[in-house]
Amino acid sequence: MISTMRSKVRRIPERGTQEWQVVSEIFDACFLASVGFCVDQQPFVIPTLYGRKGETLYLHGSAASRMLKQLATGVPACVTVALVDALVLARSAFNHSMNYRSAVAFGTAKKIMDADEKNRALEIISEHLLAGRWKEVRPPSEKELKATTVLSFAIEECSSKIRSGPVSDDEADYELPVWAGLLPLEIKSLRPIPDSRLSAGVEESNYLLDYDRRFQC
Amino acid sequence: MISTMRSKVRRIPERGTQEWQVVSEIFDACFLASVGFCVDQQPFVIPTLYGRKGETLYLHGSAASRMLKQLATGVPACVTVALVDALVLARSAFNHSMNYRSAVAFGTAKKIMDADEKNRALEIISEHLLAGRWKEVRPPSEKELKATTVLSFAIEECSSKIRSGPVSDDEADYELPVWAGLLPLEIKSLRPIPDSRLSAGVEESNYLLDYDRRFQC
Repeated sequence: MISTMRSKVRRIPERGTQEWQVVSEIFDACFLASVGFCVDQQPFVIPTLYGRKGETLYLHGSAASRMLKQLATGVPACVTVALVDALVLARSAFNHSMNYRSAVAFGTAKKIMDADEKNRALEIISEHLLAGRWKEVRPPSEKELKATTVLSFAIEECSSKIRSGPVSDDEADYELPVWAGLLPLEIKSLRPIPDSRLSAGVEESNYLLDYDRRFQC
Repeated sequence: MISTMRSKVRRIPERGTQEWQVVSEIFDACFLASVGFCVDQQPFVIPTLYGRKGETLYLHGSAASRMLKQLATGVPACVTVALVDALVLARSAFNHSMNYRSAVAFGTAKKIMDADEKNRALEIISEHLLAGRWKEVRPPSEKELKATTVLSFAIEECSSKIRSGPVSDDEADYELPVWAGLLPLEIKSLRPIPDSRLSAGVEESNYLLDYDRRFQC
């Protein structure tokens, strides 16, 4: 992977790293990415699901998707994920912050043409979102595969930025009678809601009952 | 507000709207935005907090922030928010979906120079994140205000896209012995963690105990 000014963390650089291990863990913890691309000088940012294998992200959608068509032309793209672990509530407005983990990946996408490869990429996206689901459901038909575009996005360059730990106030502010501390946030799933036409005797799989995307945003 | 092809929802247009009421509600429900801009043809997507008043979004950060400097030059920008309400688990891989709400805003940003206006914008951002907090904490000093850049982002054009409701399977798939339904997701706050140097007798405010960003992602 390369490293240029494009992916250098400039603000508070001690919070940033281009270390792949850290970046990949953030991509694995998130499930919704924001994909950016430019048409002339106009930026577009579109939320989308993804999966990861090695240094490749997979994106999918309808064959008619404008975003996927644009990305498939090989234009420079940016895929960003972020999650908020806690609100950091300081005694002064200025020292408020967030504990967060974010990752930014630069690269270009390519349309996957081979049906088997496409199928495997869809499995990777599905398992990334909900591990255990893919093998239980009816797999894509040939017609459905044709109606689906799947892109592989080779990460050329990336960086991450993380804040963790307690409040950091100005020394003089510690005596203020203001509550300070962390408000931790997490994503939780609620009870699964069965479809009204569920076949008799079909039970929820375990992966639905202990789904936990703690810290995911 | 204008409406051009830039903000037209093309894929499954019945899920899309450019109605301001719907868009503004989605911006109010979210707190983390993905801001996109282009440098030459290279897109950058950076996560950031925001606030909203009318058709203006407020962004803030260090005066040294590369993103804010770039946006302040008046380049076209895109601010996107998204939240996932539920995973939609169908009987076929192909019919899997998400219940979500997303909004995309196009426009340009401008640096706020006036100190009072800057202060008000920071209050809007703070209250958007955690209503009730601003009046309890030490307000920004003149020096802190100078170290902070605040941008107003006038929304020129926007759209939203929403999916809600149950699974939609192919008729032939309903008899498959596969669990189908919704897995609702929500963001919850955990118990606030007081700072180790909290002044004696300072209690948590109510806004910390019933913080609920249900459906926020």
